[in-house]
Amino acid sequence: MIKVGIVGGTGYTGVELLRILANHPEVRVDVITSRSEEGIRIADMYPNLRGHYDLAFTVPDVERLADCDAVFFATPHGVAMSMAPELVERGVKVIDLGADFRIKDLELWSRWYGMEHTAPELAAEAVYGLPEVNREQIRNARMIACPGCYPTAVQLGYLPLIENALVDHRRLIADCKSGVSGAGRGANVGSLLCEASESFKAYGAAGHRHLPEIKQGLGVAAGRPVGLTFVPHLTPMIRGIHATLYSVLKDPTDGLQALFEERYADEPFVDVMPAGSHPETRSVKGANVCRISVVRPQDDDTVVVLSVIDNLVKGAAGQAVQNLNILFGLEETAGLGIVALMP
Amino acid sequence: MIKVGIVGGTGYTGVELLRILANHPEVRVDVITSRSEEGIRIADMYPNLRGHYDLAFTVPDVERLADCDAVFFATPHGVAMSMAPELVERGVKVIDLGADFRIKDLELWSRWYGMEHTAPELAAEAVYGLPEVNREQIRNARMIACPGCYPTAVQLGYLPLIENALVDHRRLIADCKSGVSGAGRGANVGSLLCEASESFKAYGAAGHRHLPEIKQGLGVAAGRPVGLTFVPHLTPMIRGIHATLYSVLKDPTDGLQALFEERYADEPFVDVMPAGSHPETRSVKGANVCRISVVRPQDDDTVVVLSVIDNLVKGAAGQAVQNLNILFGLEETAGLGIVALMP
Amino acid sequence: MIKVGIVGGTGYTGVELLRILANHPEVRVDVITSRSEEGIRIADMYPNLRGHYDLAFTVPDVERLADCDAVFFATPHGVAMSMAPELVERGVKVIDLGADFRIKDLELWSRWYGMEHTAPELAAEAVYGLPEVNREQIRNARMIACPGCYPTAVQLGYLPLIENALVDHRRLIADCKSGVSGAGRGANVGSLLCEASESFKAYGAAGHRHLPEIKQGLGVAAGRPVGLTFVPHLTPMIRGIHATLYSVLKDPTDGLQALFEERYADEPFVDVMPAGSHPETRSVKGANVCRISVVRPQDDDTVVVLSVIDNLVKGAAGQAVQNLNILFGLEETAGLGIVALMP
Amino acid sequence: MIKVGIVGGTGYTGVELLRILANHPEVRVDVITSRSEEGIRIADMYPNLRGHYDLAFTVPDVERLADCDAVFFATPHGVAMSMAPELVERGVKVIDLGADFRIKDLELWSRWYGMEHTAPELAAEAVYGLPEVNREQIRNARMIACPGCYPTAVQLGYLPLIENALVDHRRLIADCKSGVSGAGRGANVGSLLCEASESFKAYGAAGHRHLPEIKQGLGVAAGRPVGLTFVPHLTPMIRGIHATLYSVLKDPTDGLQALFEERYADEPFVDVMPAGSHPETRSVKGANVCRISVVRPQDDDTVVVLSVIDNLVKGAAGQAVQNLNILFGLEETAGLGIVALMP
Repeated sequence: MIKVGIVGGTGYTGVELLRILANHPEVRVDVITSRSEEGIRIADMYPNLRGHYDLAFTVPDVERLADCDAVFFATPHGVAMSMAPELVERGVKVIDLGADFRIKDLELWSRWYGMEHTAPELAAEAVYGLPEVNREQIRNARMIACPGCYPTAVQLGYLPLIENALVDHRRLIADCKSGVSGAGRGANVGSLLCEASESFKAYGAAGHRHLPEIKQGLGVAAGRPVGLTFVPHLTPMIRGIHATLYSVLKDPTDGLQALFEERYADEPFVDVMPAGSHPETRSVKGANVCRISVVRPQDDDTVVVLSVIDNLVKGAAGQAVQNLNILFGLEETAGLGIVALMP
Repeated sequence: MIKVGIVGGTGYTGVELLRILANHPEVRVDVITSRSEEGIRIADMYPNLRGHYDLAFTVPDVERLADCDAVFFATPHGVAMSMAPELVERGVKVIDLGADFRIKDLELWSRWYGMEHTAPELAAEAVYGLPEVNREQIRNARMIACPGCYPTAVQLGYLPLIENALVDHRRLIADCKSGVSGAGRGANVGSLLCEASESFKAYGAAGHRHLPEIKQGLGVAAGRPVGLTFVPHLTPMIRGIHATLYSVLKDPTDGLQALFEERYADEPFVDVMPAGSHPETRSVKGANVCRISVVRPQDDDTVVVLSVIDNLVKGAAGQAVQNLNILFGLEETAGLGIVALMP
Repeated sequence: MIKVGIVGGTGYTGVELLRILANHPEVRVDVITSRSEEGIRIADMYPNLRGHYDLAFTVPDVERLADCDAVFFATPHGVAMSMAPELVERGVKVIDLGADFRIKDLELWSRWYGMEHTAPELAAEAVYGLPEVNREQIRNARMIACPGCYPTAVQLGYLPLIENALVDHRRLIADCKSGVSGAGRGANVGSLLCEASESFKAYGAAGHRHLPEIKQGLGVAAGRPVGLTFVPHLTPMIRGIHATLYSVLKDPTDGLQALFEERYADEPFVDVMPAGSHPETRSVKGANVCRISVVRPQDDDTVVVLSVIDNLVKGAAGQAVQNLNILFGLEETAGLGIVALMP
Repeated sequence: MIKVGIVGGTGYTGVELLRILANHPEVRVDVITSRSEEGIRIADMYPNLRGHYDLAFTVPDVERLADCDAVFFATPHGVAMSMAPELVERGVKVIDLGADFRIKDLELWSRWYGMEHTAPELAAEAVYGLPEVNREQIRNARMIACPGCYPTAVQLGYLPLIENALVDHRRLIADCKSGVSGAGRGANVGSLLCEASESFKAYGAAGHRHLPEIKQGLGVAAGRPVGLTFVPHLTPMIRGIHATLYSVLKDPTDGLQALFEERYADEPFVDVMPAGSHPETRSVKGANVCRISVVRPQDDDTVVVLSVIDNLVKGAAGQAVQNLNILFGLEETAGLGIVALMP
């Protein structure tokens, strides 16, 4: 059994890791940390885990974490970069679900995240954990930076178009909608049921932290910088991201459906839907899948890609476990066969 | 008191007319029709109206309707065009909340609505009931075609940019999100709580009936045909439309906030929010208001307009009453001072 | 115009008072206070009020409040009792939407609310503001204690049975369900959309602060102490309370429907539904109404009363305005004709 | 592998069987029937199953079903009793998720279900599939009648009290709340998102089909007929049942927590929560668990039991699989380790 630790286990990505790992055939959670909940049994905090775990939260401690084979950070930015270097040094594989190691340009990182980066060398070494792009590098990595939720949905949707230089890379528009769990488990007024349900709004239209990450990923795929307008929205539901991606075809073509199907033919967790489909976020609720449809309205030169994920699974904890599986040479799908809950 | 009739009073726009008119100081509902509910008291069907109406549904009958000063049609397309000509002939003002009289090009209408138009002369005469554009023509009209819900939100959002030829009119993108009441009160599986809640999806991405209506309106404003990609989405809530509108500025400018504020300075039902705001659909829930924000992300050449309405009010019944007020020379705001319900 | 002040205007009952009073024909809001939001315009905090108010929040100040004809307290317990005595002394009518003046037995009050009562004389004088019971006393009161939300729904449902001594008063069971707005606008984890939506739970089953208030009210109606089991539940919606009230008939009878209809025949805000109905909370959403059905399952000796209100309206702000209307000799329904929003 | 068939696979209990069985280590779904969807691949109807099943719906056919080791009926009442006798005759184990075989008194059954029973002998033989009561009989049964959703939650909650004759069995009150999926996937207006969300109501207060089933089960446990008032309510969420159960203790006692813990100590799917807990329905969303708390408010003689299940899992498909596991001598928990989805 692979022994894993989870730093920051009280947020939604932490409890989601626990949910997924509860049925993973080759992984055992040995340590879970939380400063605020020290001593509390996780089953007392998350009753859905009653009967699945006896573990209690402990204060983060590098010595205990160093006994693990792998450590997940499910923490706000700033935490992983303070602890990951020592763990990596001591041979622990580190998988960060936060933002510390996602962006290669650390000046850019500092501008968006408002702090200095304290682990520049590890940031340079870290592999961006989007298996559909970087599977081989992940296999041999010591440090994985899991993509953000929006960046996962947007990149998987745009990749076939961008990699093949089919669209004007200077005018990409990503109109994205997220369930409220994307805002985390913090007690802020805007996430109250009475504030966020029965309502829909944009936020961060002037600029959102996932913008530089998406541009970095698509820039790599395009081989040059891309221009992107990214507007995130809050939709009144718990889980799910829906990305509606607009771009302009250089040469209008009928071959887009085949292009997408081929690009993802061997990917276990990307599902290209039949032509004419509209993927629903509920079709991935709780499952580690990205479902994609591509459409060309009125057979014009604008192409629209619809891409859905569960932000907590393929957008966070599920993708993290997928990376773990690759890192340790397991079946990539191990523990990730969970079927989406529908209805 | 102005005597009004409502044809098709059992759907959501019908009951919403009743809710608004219950407190209108100068209007009395005399007739409400429904074939399926003949004889049923509306308060028995809609308990929120108990104590406000004693009226019962009757079978549609031109004689009885002709006694009214005005008749609203809250019906599926095809109904209004079969009855309106006679009513107009007999001096009744007709306000159609449906689609029969919205599109001037009747061939185009037939293509999208799948039937022949049977009242072409009245269609030619009908005034498109968007007061922010056509207030003067509405004043003297005999037949009003109320705009659709999406077209209201999209046109009000784009008008300042289009009327002033500030953006590339060939590449407009309207990414729109609607609550489920937009699908009506019909018993179809897709609108069940278990199918539509906790999920988000696009629909009609390849083409939606509101597309030609929006293009017509924006084309008039631009003075030439516009190019538009319109993707509607279903969001898990009852009421509200959020339109996120993208366009490319010909000359990037800082003056957009002022432009929007001036355009709508005298409009009682369009509210330009302060710079930096993100309008929430709940801020208009139950109210006859369109709230708009305009933003230029990263001060680039793409402009994003955020426009929200309650699809049943400013997108349907409220706008219909606003038209009635104009038609009969009342205060335009009469009966429309309802404050949005928040939370 | 009657000049009113609102102390504690940032919570849900405060904004609801503003929504209702915006269209009240004889009332003007002159002062609204909030320590935390001093200087903020209410329309900037609550965009639904844009266009309806220019007022800004000020720090609570007895001098300014003393200029009002009436002052509402929409505050946590402990606040009203510290300011009300001076205001009453200076001739201001005080209407407390909080808990300070609801319970006559101040020892009992202290036990449930965890503090000493600092205005025992005013507490003795205060009139319990349930117009359906105390209309005459309200008329001449100086200090009104508005009932809690659960107590309103439960008392109105039980009164016809208790006042007529038809049921065993020692074995009353009130199973109550509330929307999340009952928990207020405080940022606590349990009220987050991600915690409270798609779930249902009981809370405070061992004891809830509204229990002694309900027992006091029903005890007065019965002429002796009553026995009550009261279990509140949280239901995933914003507004609404549904009370399901069980009791055992001393003599099974067919006359319950008539009894309820007679008891409330002249009440403008209590609606006895037809036999066989099940009132829905949405039928009162935003409206100052309590709708009630009474049923005797299998014609047995257990009677079930179903009672619904909007917790923020008839359970708080609407009832407070109803009290204001009575206090100042206005039409009791002034400003309270708002129709429930449905759908 | 055990070969199973599912009759009526298009409803919510059908798709839930498919979700659970997709990861069952010893079961293979060979046949799934639907008259209306013949030829449609289930993954085209239920996109959450894409990648898990290749099967298409076929018309129900006894010959094909007779090749299965077990057949589930996920059908409206009346269907199972028409096909089950022949299947049982031919050696197929039949598990009915519908109502045909739940009630032993067929006259009573006819009164509540409005039709004659056509398989009285099989009804007499059928075993009521509540493993916590009938595990031994299930082991050797040919025909299993799975309990209804409300009856599961109510019986599991009351059993420790009733079996030990601790409460007045003549005055039981079960106030139950169900998510909307309990109403099935039929397209009826009352289950629309716009009708059922943001609202709460009782239904069937005068009498509901699950009443005689619950009374039968509790009557067996009590050794004599019980008196029960059962009021079901609709709560605005997809999944979950919360039963709040009231009864009067003959001798008030402190030992209830221990009593419940002992009664269910060896039950893999009943979880007695710690004293002072309030189980949330979301803690069982998607999982085959019943979580129970017991409380005695104010240490009085009324005992309140709170019991939650997922109506589609422990209240239907999960319990059906649990019965299958018992029938075929598998681990009772096989395929049922799914963790509830939270948040």
